[in-house]
Amino acid sequence: MHRTHTCGELTKANIGQEITLSGWVANRRDHGWVIFIDLRDRYGITQTVFDPADNKEAWELADKFRGEYVVKLTWIVKPRMEWQTNSNLPTWDIEIKITKAELLMESKTPPFEINDHVEANEEVRLKHRYLDLRRKSVQDNIIFRAKMNRFTHNWFSDNGFLEVQTPIFTVSSPEWARDYVIPSRLQPGQFYALPQSPQQYKQLLMIGWIDKYYQIAPCFRDEDPRADRHSCEFYQIDVEMSFVEQDDIFKVAEWFVNDLIPGIVPEKHIYTPEIPAWVKSVIGRDWKTGNRFIQLTHKESQTFYGSDKPDLRFDMHFEDFTADFNKSEFSVFKDAVDNGGCVKAMKMDGVNMSRKDIDEVTEVARWGWAKWLAYIIYDEEGPRSPILKYFSESEIKALETRFSPKSGDMIFFWAGSFKAVVKSMNVVRLALRDKFNLADKNAVTFAWVTDFPMFELDKETGKIDFEHNPFSMPHGWVTAFDNPNVEEIYGMQYDMSCNGYEILSGSIRNHNLKALTKAMEMVGKSEEDVKRKFGAIYNAFQYGVPPHGWFAFGFDRIMMILTNEENIRAIYAFPKSGKAEDTMMCAPSYIESEQLEELHIDIRPEIKEELGME
Amino acid sequence: MHRTHTCGELTKANIGQEITLSGWVANRRDHGWVIFIDLRDRYGITQTVFDPADNKEAWELADKFRGEYVVKLTWIVKPRMEWQTNSNLPTWDIEIKITKAELLMESKTPPFEINDHVEANEEVRLKHRYLDLRRKSVQDNIIFRAKMNRFTHNWFSDNGFLEVQTPIFTVSSPEWARDYVIPSRLQPGQFYALPQSPQQYKQLLMIGWIDKYYQIAPCFRDEDPRADRHSCEFYQIDVEMSFVEQDDIFKVAEWFVNDLIPGIVPEKHIYTPEIPAWVKSVIGRDWKTGNRFIQLTHKESQTFYGSDKPDLRFDMHFEDFTADFNKSEFSVFKDAVDNGGCVKAMKMDGVNMSRKDIDEVTEVARWGWAKWLAYIIYDEEGPRSPILKYFSESEIKALETRFSPKSGDMIFFWAGSFKAVVKSMNVVRLALRDKFNLADKNAVTFAWVTDFPMFELDKETGKIDFEHNPFSMPHGWVTAFDNPNVEEIYGMQYDMSCNGYEILSGSIRNHNLKALTKAMEMVGKSEEDVKRKFGAIYNAFQYGVPPHGWFAFGFDRIMMILTNEENIRAIYAFPKSGKAEDTMMCAPSYIESEQLEELHIDIRPEIKEELGME
Repeated sequence: MHRTHTCGELTKANIGQEITLSGWVANRRDHGWVIFIDLRDRYGITQTVFDPADNKEAWELADKFRGEYVVKLTWIVKPRMEWQTNSNLPTWDIEIKITKAELLMESKTPPFEINDHVEANEEVRLKHRYLDLRRKSVQDNIIFRAKMNRFTHNWFSDNGFLEVQTPIFTVSSPEWARDYVIPSRLQPGQFYALPQSPQQYKQLLMIGWIDKYYQIAPCFRDEDPRADRHSCEFYQIDVEMSFVEQDDIFKVAEWFVNDLIPGIVPEKHIYTPEIPAWVKSVIGRDWKTGNRFIQLTHKESQTFYGSDKPDLRFDMHFEDFTADFNKSEFSVFKDAVDNGGCVKAMKMDGVNMSRKDIDEVTEVARWGWAKWLAYIIYDEEGPRSPILKYFSESEIKALETRFSPKSGDMIFFWAGSFKAVVKSMNVVRLALRDKFNLADKNAVTFAWVTDFPMFELDKETGKIDFEHNPFSMPHGWVTAFDNPNVEEIYGMQYDMSCNGYEILSGSIRNHNLKALTKAMEMVGKSEEDVKRKFGAIYNAFQYGVPPHGWFAFGFDRIMMILTNEENIRAIYAFPKSGKAEDTMMCAPSYIESEQLEELHIDIRPEIKEELGME
Repeated sequence: MHRTHTCGELTKANIGQEITLSGWVANRRDHGWVIFIDLRDRYGITQTVFDPADNKEAWELADKFRGEYVVKLTWIVKPRMEWQTNSNLPTWDIEIKITKAELLMESKTPPFEINDHVEANEEVRLKHRYLDLRRKSVQDNIIFRAKMNRFTHNWFSDNGFLEVQTPIFTVSSPEWARDYVIPSRLQPGQFYALPQSPQQYKQLLMIGWIDKYYQIAPCFRDEDPRADRHSCEFYQIDVEMSFVEQDDIFKVAEWFVNDLIPGIVPEKHIYTPEIPAWVKSVIGRDWKTGNRFIQLTHKESQTFYGSDKPDLRFDMHFEDFTADFNKSEFSVFKDAVDNGGCVKAMKMDGVNMSRKDIDEVTEVARWGWAKWLAYIIYDEEGPRSPILKYFSESEIKALETRFSPKSGDMIFFWAGSFKAVVKSMNVVRLALRDKFNLADKNAVTFAWVTDFPMFELDKETGKIDFEHNPFSMPHGWVTAFDNPNVEEIYGMQYDMSCNGYEILSGSIRNHNLKALTKAMEMVGKSEEDVKRKFGAIYNAFQYGVPPHGWFAFGFDRIMMILTNEENIRAIYAFPKSGKAEDTMMCAPSYIESEQLEELHIDIRPEIKEELGME
């Protein structure tokens, strides 16, 4: 028997017991004759003492112990005298008089210190991930992932969803992202593909009466590495439901996160802001009912926050002043309006920006495709700004009517094309958030962004392509496709944003084969193409397909938000590097030529030459 | 809103409510004016009635309904008059007077009847799996899998195991089974491999302090299709633990299945037979303690049941009579003994075998590599057998002492080399089990088979190879490798059998790098080979590796046993065919030449030529 307890659980309650601990030597201190060894494992640290007067043999062995050695110690727990108690360690109120010590395994000195306070180079840490795993912050994330997995499984099962594991070996559909493919040994020249998502399978489940499906699904896309996307594989909480309309789906997703946050991160709270005064007058409707999440259309989200994933923990929406400044003496505003562009502004409440701050934010605005940043500062003496001299009284009034600025507030201005303006405003809004802590870090704010455009039109070529998922039903159903202005065909297609990230996508499916074929034809695909590319769906849709819809939460993205991590690699036990490599395992790697032969493939001659193969 | 209830839940309690159901038309009967439509979904069937006197419009629409149409019906539930009640359907005690009917989607006539009583061709069913999924037996298995997944997740989490999802993209190690590989786009000429199991990662987790790991792990092996092994991917309940000895691991695995069976299949019961009288005298020890599972060494299991996965729901063990028959007048026995072989027998209790039965079993024995089958039948007048005349009185006595045969019993004999004899006896034993129902179908009997040989020796070439997992610790630890008789080096390596199937494998790991290198050297691999092939393990083992061990349950195998399925395809939602194909999705398939180019690979010229490509 290697242990009776872990290193984190001994307390006064164990007094009188003979206990055995196995663990790793955290550190070792010699106080004259006496040797102190801190033994640790993932549960905690237990401090032990070796006194030659107690046990000479154990003491001699302990003299050989070094950091990260694996050792096994046995003793009878006795109460510690008061003056020795160190209240920092919860297990440190007992006396240790070792009766038996054993060295289980030695260790070389690790290439970096196993300690959360020490910042080691990421490359070294990934190469030795098995040591990095010993750091508390890394373990905490692994534990968090397990907890979130479990919560998710139980929540969906409890609520009548059936977990179905869809195949990992499937067929290539390269029109979306790039597929990872696997050469088949048994079918020469053919390839399996790993699923980019379980989409087709889960639609087939609906046809097969599995009306409430879920899965924590591994997804595989051969995309270029990015900081917020794990290379090779990533996970989504994948749901499909039959006999539902958009709001039925919204309710399930809201209900899930409403339970998830208190369930696994009680230190965070869901914050759904009350409807601000401007909403009804500017948007023309309230944007939520009761305790439900905010709903913005894609267009509204772009107009008021310049993003399809707005961070709504704080307001700072964009107001439009195009009509107010159409006769501006300030040429930048005037020119923008004359050229069909817009003038927009947003207000930041009660922050004193220094000259340096303003310069920094101006830099950000430049990155965000604006040439410059105009602003008005309100202080006790009223507004001041380099551009104030250009403003007429009525223009100032328009501003003040809408923003009601107080001393300490600032108003920022943009002018130009709609796209460029809102893009830059979004970047500046988020930069100000981060710089001045405008958003509560422990608040989690969800919002629906709905009505994504189905198509995008290349104005130069006139070519139409899908903007998002072609399998979505348009608002207005089948007849919506008759709209000659294709950019105004909106899908029953939605995202959920959370604190400025997109954490969910979904749609009501187009379950009418004729309408689906019509949608495909609009982007230049024939019915034959549909049959060939989506044969299973094409066939299955002829046998009684129910109305159905879906959503998928980005598991990794939610986990990043809830653990305050900014790097996707922090939330995987064995992450791929920024180059999609596993440097510890040396994956990918070259394989034997016999393997290639058996798979009926070969490396291209030009690559072989480059690599000096053969 | 598409439905207020499912088709399986309406009862008298709903009387007075307006309800809406959506579902599929199961069948339609016209009784004069009145049309009866059975509406179904995965939850049940609701019978509805359309009377033109109630609602002409609905009745006219119902007249168009055909099998598998998707329809939506609304009505107010009223009590049904007594004489109409059909007690076969739980929902059939209410009256249906349709107020609104809607046709949601039409359907072609399915290629096979959606009904468990109809046996459709498997090929057609797999091609149209989305329709096959509507059959109750298929749904039941999908539901069972979800239930077993959930039970497993909760059980291991509740007991302190941490779920870690190990990478699906890793490195090739082709010395075991064949790997599936994925060409890398970013690293020309290199390949990822899908893991045959998470072995290396979970050992690294132990070094990283994750001392109790579990995962329902997808595993990938490019093996030839087999009825009890799913092609491409399969799942195992994968566990690794630090600071454990063999029996610690046994306790966890026993504890799990002891909870699993009553937890998800209450109609089955765990049956661990009491220790039969012969065990102590013949094996020389009791084979279990208390409520624990039976433990047999690999050698014992072969000797007494001719298998490393014995079905112990019934006894019929093999007794050895080599010493008793070494002077036999029966030349077959005598010759076997003289040639260093053995004479063995087993007894079947109280079954009357006809001549035809005996002939059939003799056939089975022939398949099992025995030339013939000798037997003695005991009836009221004592023994009778064609070979009885060769038996001496002392030989008969030896038989009767050991078997105590009663009237109705039969004794079967084998003679020959040990390997051939026990192999044939095993096959006959299992055939008799199936023919005469010797094993309780609702009983589940587990047994440990331990001490597998580490190495196999090719007697002709003298070449040594690993018999099983090279990463296992031998009994006797490092010094065991000094044994010059390599076939007598036994590993701390074990299987768990259940009703004649292997459902678990595991071992205590060899965590000593020197000993591991020594093991590798014995099969002709150098330390450099170990470094190159298992670089991560080789490096990690230098930084304080704890003693550790593992087991993995075959998820699919357990599920087959518990659902009484004999075909692996029955327990997957979307199974691969016997040719490792997904005929519904057409996977694998040919891919675009641009994809091949981007991945820096090409199909071999001879295959292209064969396929007429280019």
